[in-house]
Formats: sequence, structure tokens, C-alpha cells
Amino acid sequence: MSTQVSKKSAEKIAKHKASKWRDGNFQPIDDALAVEEPLEIRLAGRRFTLTMRTPGNDEELAAGFLLAEGFINNANELGEIRRVRDAKGANESNVIDVILNVRADGLRERLKRNFTMSSSCGVCGKTSIESITRRVAPIASRAKIAAATILPLGARLRESQEVFAATGGLHACGLFDLEGKLVATREDIGRHNAVDKVVGWALANELLPLSKSLMMVSGRLSFEIVQKAAAAGVPILLAVSAPSSLAVELADEVRITLVGFLRDGSFNVYTHRARVTG
Amino acid sequence: MSTQVSKKSAEKIAKHKASKWRDGNFQPIDDALAVEEPLEIRLAGRRFTLTMRTPGNDEELAAGFLLAEGFINNANELGEIRRVRDAKGANESNVIDVILNVRADGLRERLKRNFTMSSSCGVCGKTSIESITRRVAPIASRAKIAAATILPLGARLRESQEVFAATGGLHACGLFDLEGKLVATREDIGRHNAVDKVVGWALANELLPLSKSLMMVSGRLSFEIVQKAAAAGVPILLAVSAPSSLAVELADEVRITLVGFLRDGSFNVYTHRARVTG
Repeated sequence: MSTQVSKKSAEKIAKHKASKWRDGNFQPIDDALAVEEPLEIRLAGRRFTLTMRTPGNDEELAAGFLLAEGFINNANELGEIRRVRDAKGANESNVIDVILNVRADGLRERLKRNFTMSSSCGVCGKTSIESITRRVAPIASRAKIAAATILPLGARLRESQEVFAATGGLHACGLFDLEGKLVATREDIGRHNAVDKVVGWALANELLPLSKSLMMVSGRLSFEIVQKAAAAGVPILLAVSAPSSLAVELADEVRITLVGFLRDGSFNVYTHRARVTG
Repeated sequence: MSTQVSKKSAEKIAKHKASKWRDGNFQPIDDALAVEEPLEIRLAGRRFTLTMRTPGNDEELAAGFLLAEGFINNANELGEIRRVRDAKGANESNVIDVILNVRADGLRERLKRNFTMSSSCGVCGKTSIESITRRVAPIASRAKIAAATILPLGARLRESQEVFAATGGLHACGLFDLEGKLVATREDIGRHNAVDKVVGWALANELLPLSKSLMMVSGRLSFEIVQKAAAAGVPILLAVSAPSSLAVELADEVRITLVGFLRDGSFNVYTHRARVTG
């Protein structure tokens, strides 16, 4: 997809050379990806939270988050927001520090009330940018899949979605073998949960690493989904819709074949295309 | 939407009586909502993480999550998973306890490496079910909106989405006044971030509480979005797609008018319909 965007929006878009499969052939395309990057929010210099976000309006993001969580009640309590370098000093743009204008005892009480311990859905419970880049061994799988086998998988996943059909409200993750047979599928309100459930199923059935499998998710594909697929050893990851910039970067690094926009008789391959045969 | 579903899928669906606006009238409908409920995962009895999920396959969810996060590497390390009562003893189904088969020193190392401190995108960084139900004052706003004013808002939000148009990869949150004029809009890879940015903008401009505003999000509507809207004092919350069961429950409780499936000339009102005039 492409269209004219303002300069302000341009920083939210990353160009990526991909291959589009359509009508029996690959064609090179310049795809525009939505930028996904971590934002580390600190409170008075102390690491507080991390969110995967699209850059821009980061001060608003921090302010809105702190309000929603009950740490501040008005603009006066917000105090000062500064942009700081990250731990390596290399990146000025993904760490901000908030000095709240709230009395220390009141803040302690708010922290205690709202945050008990730690963790989350794979990314957003973490507090430092380094903590998200856990080293995962690159996928060594030599699995190959024919383009013609990929094409019908979107419809096959959708057919398996009983609860989506009833509610329009659920994401799905499906696991296929290299012949395109659906092996397992799970639905959940959270895409990351659907992936966790499929991987948990594979773990219980002693199928890890999933080196001869394709994993497909409904909707979009973000960094954390690639991370989960990599941890399970999945060589080929497919999505109905768009991948984020960071999803493509990580897939490239861990040698996952990343396929997006799998619908309407075509798909885009973003990384490690060698696994897809014509 | 409705269709035949298996018994296993039925627990993932909650029925809710809503009102559909179409062709100038409200009609009562029995809508099927995807169930969203918190799952508290404990490690050897200690609160570890909380995720908002659709019930079912919870043991798989815990196992897959722990694998993705590097706490276990294989099925043997998983040990035992038990379902336990929550703190009030009232609910047996939303808390599970995992006893890992990992040596204590190894586990400490893994915890240290992966989880620095706390927090997240409003819900999933929390560790206990009680911690998500922060008391928010019910919305007292007497704002009213005409159904005819609501209908075009979906198209208006979409038109404002520059980066979505270019990438197909971003969510949006828009703030409208009671005449349907777009006041602010933000795009982000995370829907919750887009909401935080809009609320942060409103905070900086001293517009809180947003008692004379409508907030609209692209896509689906989950618990955490209602929580954020409530914290900002928004009386009317709209979504292009389906709300979850817990989103509807919370909106009912905090007196937010919740509108879903706003597209193709119709919309559904799930809660507090009195604010929508014919």
C-alpha cells in the first residue's frame, strides 16, 4: 500500500523491499511498514515500564499512561518529561524520564496499589530496552513450502475459528504442517495468548522445536509474535495482515521466513524467501 | 453475529442484550461477545503474571508463555500445573499455579534476566486479579449524542489515519466533540498507546475530564480501553468492531455508553443507551 503522507507521519513508516507472490510469480515491491519501537518510561530516573509503540507523541503517551494507571490525576502532577539517552548512549529517542510532581509518600502508595510484581504478555511487562532483546538461536530449519500451499491457509485458519464466527471478537493462531494441513488452532481475545496456547500445546505433545511447521496468526504481526515463534523454533510465520518494522527486523535476524498480507490470492514475503518455492 | 458453535467454544461466548441502530431505529438484539477474563499465573504459589485472555487451554497458555520468556526450555522443566482458588476463594477458574522443574538457582537467574521491575500496557503487567479492578468514579456526564451524528464517525476516523493508509498496520484513537467534529487523533501500532496519546494530549491541554467528548478506537474494544476511557472521564466510547465481555461489564459499571460495530450505516449500543438520541 502507498499514499502521500505528511512529513510528521513519515517517521512512522519504514520502507522495506519485499516480494509479492501473485499469479504464479514473485514480483519485487517496496512495502511501507508501520514503525514499531520500544519506549522505555522512567520515573525520576528509575526504570518503570516499557511499551512497544510507534514513535511520535511519546510525552503524550507517557502522560496518558500515568493518568490511566492512577499515578497522576491532572496536568500539574505530571511535572517534567525529559528525553534521555538509553543505556548504551546510542539512542536518544526511545527513553523518556518523567519527574512527577507528586509527594513521595503519595507516590509510594500509588505504586504499591497499582503494581505488585512484574511481567506480562512477552514485552510490555518489561522495563528496559535491553530486556526485550533476549538472545534466541537463529532458526536452522531447512523446511521449504510451495507458494501454492501457502495461498489457501488463510481461509483454512478462518474456517477453524468457531468463536470468531460467532462474535467477530477473537484472534487465532494456527499451526500447519509443510503440506498445509492444520495441526492445531487456538482462539483468544489476545493474539499473543493464542500463540502461547499453540506453543504450549506443542510443548505438551513434545513437538518442539517446530522446525517443520508453519505458524499463522490472524490480523497483524508484531515483534512479540516473532519472538514467541522463534522461541518455539518456527521457521515460517504467516499473517493475514501487515507486519511491523520490528517484526521484520527480528525475523530477518533469527532467520524466520515472514509472510504478510496473506489474502485474496496473494501474499508478501519479507524475509528469508528461499524457503518459499514457486 | 451468530452461528452454531461446539460446547467447548460456548464457554468462550457471553450473550448480551444490546440495541442495534439501523435505518433510523433501535432494534433489540441478542449479541454474542467473546469472553475476556483475567488469568493469574503463579510460580510455586507466588504471583508472577496476569494476562487478559479468553478462558480455555489455560495450561497451554501458561506453558507457552513460560517457554517464550525463557523460563522453561522443554516439557520436562514445566513440572506441575494446578488450578487454584483466587484470593477470595470465590473463583476457581482464573488462577493457576505452576511448579517448575528447574533448579532454584537457575530459576533465579532466569527471573533476573527477564524481569527487571514491573508494569505494562494497563493490564498485563499486573500480577493479581484484584489489581486490575482499580476503582474509577462512575462517569456522571449528561452528554447526549444523536444517532445520526455517530454514523459518519468511523469514516471520519479512517480518513484521518495517514499512516494506516500507507501501511495497513496502525490502530487509531480519535476524540470527537458532541457535534461529531474530530478534535484529536493519534495512530499507533498498539491500540492502547493510541488511546494513551490522545488522553495525554487532552491532559496537556487541560481538557480533563473529557465529559463532553466521544472517544473512538479502530478495531476491537477490550477491558483496558474502557479502563483508560473511564480514567479520562469519557462518557461515550465507540469501536469499529466487537467489544469483549469484560469491556461491556466494566462500561456498564462505570456508566460509559459503549458502542460497537460502528460501520456500514449501523452500530450496536451495549450499555447506557440513554445518551444516544434517535
